[in-house]
Amino acid sequence: MTVPDPAPAAVAAWGPREVPTTALLTDHYELTMLQAALQAGTADRPCVFELFARRLPPGRRYGVVAGVGRALRALEHFRFDTESLEFLRGASVVDDRTADWLADFRFDGSIWGYPEGEIYFPGSPIVVVESSFAAGVVLETVLLSIYNHDAAIASAASRMTAMAGDRPCIEMGSRRTQELAAVAAARAAYVAGFEATSNLEAGRRYGVPTRGTSAHSFTLLHADERAAFAAQIAALGEDTTLLVDTYDVEAAVRTGVELTGGRLGAVRLDSGDLALMATQVRALLDSLGATGTRIIVTSDLDEFTIAALSGAPVDGYGVGTALVTGSGAPTSGFVYKLVARAESDEPGAPMTPVAKKSADKISVGGRKYAVRRLSRAGVAEAELVGIGAVSRHDSDDRELLVPLVTDGEIVGRESLETARDRHRRARAELPLEALKMSRGEPVVETVYAGAGAVQGNPYAPAGR
Amino acid sequence: MTVPDPAPAAVAAWGPREVPTTALLTDHYELTMLQAALQAGTADRPCVFELFARRLPPGRRYGVVAGVGRALRALEHFRFDTESLEFLRGASVVDDRTADWLADFRFDGSIWGYPEGEIYFPGSPIVVVESSFAAGVVLETVLLSIYNHDAAIASAASRMTAMAGDRPCIEMGSRRTQELAAVAAARAAYVAGFEATSNLEAGRRYGVPTRGTSAHSFTLLHADERAAFAAQIAALGEDTTLLVDTYDVEAAVRTGVELTGGRLGAVRLDSGDLALMATQVRALLDSLGATGTRIIVTSDLDEFTIAALSGAPVDGYGVGTALVTGSGAPTSGFVYKLVARAESDEPGAPMTPVAKKSADKISVGGRKYAVRRLSRAGVAEAELVGIGAVSRHDSDDRELLVPLVTDGEIVGRESLETARDRHRRARAELPLEALKMSRGEPVVETVYAGAGAVQGNPYAPAGR
Repeated sequence: MTVPDPAPAAVAAWGPREVPTTALLTDHYELTMLQAALQAGTADRPCVFELFARRLPPGRRYGVVAGVGRALRALEHFRFDTESLEFLRGASVVDDRTADWLADFRFDGSIWGYPEGEIYFPGSPIVVVESSFAAGVVLETVLLSIYNHDAAIASAASRMTAMAGDRPCIEMGSRRTQELAAVAAARAAYVAGFEATSNLEAGRRYGVPTRGTSAHSFTLLHADERAAFAAQIAALGEDTTLLVDTYDVEAAVRTGVELTGGRLGAVRLDSGDLALMATQVRALLDSLGATGTRIIVTSDLDEFTIAALSGAPVDGYGVGTALVTGSGAPTSGFVYKLVARAESDEPGAPMTPVAKKSADKISVGGRKYAVRRLSRAGVAEAELVGIGAVSRHDSDDRELLVPLVTDGEIVGRESLETARDRHRRARAELPLEALKMSRGEPVVETVYAGAGAVQGNPYAPAGR
Repeated sequence: MTVPDPAPAAVAAWGPREVPTTALLTDHYELTMLQAALQAGTADRPCVFELFARRLPPGRRYGVVAGVGRALRALEHFRFDTESLEFLRGASVVDDRTADWLADFRFDGSIWGYPEGEIYFPGSPIVVVESSFAAGVVLETVLLSIYNHDAAIASAASRMTAMAGDRPCIEMGSRRTQELAAVAAARAAYVAGFEATSNLEAGRRYGVPTRGTSAHSFTLLHADERAAFAAQIAALGEDTTLLVDTYDVEAAVRTGVELTGGRLGAVRLDSGDLALMATQVRALLDSLGATGTRIIVTSDLDEFTIAALSGAPVDGYGVGTALVTGSGAPTSGFVYKLVARAESDEPGAPMTPVAKKSADKISVGGRKYAVRRLSRAGVAEAELVGIGAVSRHDSDDRELLVPLVTDGEIVGRESLETARDRHRRARAELPLEALKMSRGEPVVETVYAGAGAVQGNPYAPAGR
């Protein structure tokens, strides 16, 4: 085939971006606050914002940081372009002065954060933004959206890949979530150990390996199952995966083995009692000499059913709905709070910790550091969170905040493979009970320390 | 300020689109099926695909169709451009012949569907695609993603606006869902009766009214609450909404009333026992003469808490997490199935209903029609679904399938206001028990009729 030359302008505008600008992925109130602060003369006051979770989703023992790379990409494209500004002016969201400020806006502060794939716990300061009030406040929604979604997916995915052990998990939930959330979900699942995705855009955009062969519609299109299987094998080769539950599983398996002389790559089971069927199909395949044919199961799997299938002769899991909906926790509950501000606009004015006073929505003021405290054997023992500079700690401990943006320059880019490796190592450090699927408490406690810190753990459940 | 002229090419590329092309928002297996069908000579066989839900989310009494306009937009931009094809070839997803076919692909079939805002029930044929196998199969994922997400949000939103009655609901959940899902969620909520959104991109892209004033960070930025409130009032006027629970609610309300001479627009409560606090704040406002100051409540609201606040002096609800996560049902469970195909490739060959045989995943074969059966009083009595042409029905009944795409041409575009009006009218037709918040069965039954139709309702719960 002949591929025409791409129009350079079009490629430049489209190619590397999720959306032309991310600047309107923002709540209205961030711009009204900006406008009021500009008018009051407080917009430039140095501030520290923090993104953190007060608690994990109910029963979860750890969370997984994801979305860091996407957040940096969003920051890079956070520009109020002509069209955005026309909208904001036309809809009277902002006045002229604020629009002028937005037109020139480039984030010039610094951001630290937990790197992608890292584990987190309640109170972990996952992102720390040091900037003017104005520069920090406008990032609130886009940062929260990305982290809340991607971490929810990665946290669920990590439990699934832990239960699957050496058996590969394939992400196939695109159809059960918004079409662009699907792309992000495939990426987050890959960070948390999934081997591949069905989503082609995740392949193109992020390089996640893609997989897929056939649906029931392909079998139903043809006069009979044999014709459909023959067509699939002719097009995709004997190593393909045949979907064998459209009519009668046993007949389908026999047909597939016959058509490939026993060299069929895999069969997929998408309904029924998967453990029972996998056992029967394995026996049948072996009796037919197709001992190398793998069995892939799909159909409403989650971490619990994956665990329950650990004794069945299954070679891989396709996971859809439960993955993209966070397996009961579709959002992570991260919040983004002002935790410190300069006492005045005088240059060099000291920073003051600030926090809302509320019984049910606790925040801890102050610029944090964070360390994963590890035993000599390399097992995680505590999440140490302190105010101020990092205090002395054991050489086995790991500092958790890394520079992501320094004076406006993005410095935290890394490959997805790096994040994926990090997650595997960080999860392996957790105490064994982290991988219990029963409901539990966070597997290590968050401990507050340092000058001016609160005593104990303000996010601990009552009575703990 | 001076707005420079937009570069026309950039506007053409960016402006009206969610993404440059929607063609890769597709599962890998759709293209491998296409490739196998092209090779087998079955790709052009006339087919009917149907998008439907086997059941509503647990306990729900009705569902709301949403995403129609977004699906048509996605279809319009479903083009395999140069970059997409390079990726697909490079990753060996497709061969040369299939890539050539994709390069020329324009959907040339016809699509009928329930219009946006309409109510649906189990088995409602929400989308019916009549096309070649090839043209229909490649749309599977993008259609499911859009409908599954948007209908989940609209279905939750409709229950919330029903419980809120005349009090406005404002969507403010962007931060708790993926950043572009947030834009779609704001749109779906508007269809289902929300008055406004916090999401600025939903304002720009879809014209949904946007709202927002201030967060706790703005108060914490300033030396004291009085300074923060004064700054906000100076910038946004006395009609603004002050967030009064950063420190002490009573003191904050007094300050706000004092600073505006009693003309304060509204106060927002974002924590605590909202019913109790609203009552206390109403009494305080009235005692201070601020009888026109409204009370807006936010903080983890859902349809149940909105219902519980119906007796409290509340003037509006801001809803976040529960809305964008579908209030316990983040996806709608729609599936997309081949329900009929031509018996052969001969021109004019008759269509044969097809369906997978499975105990747990039922499909009903055949091209459907659908009618909402209404009593003389205009109350919905049944969802009548039949195979073949629409059978005679009462003049009060409403046909539910409207043309969306005719021979490749999009004919179903309409304004969001039209969809919003339709939803209000369709919900008003439902029997009163539709708006009970307790768990229940679908409020009207889906009845199958017509030549060759199944008897009874195959999607009814066992034992019904």
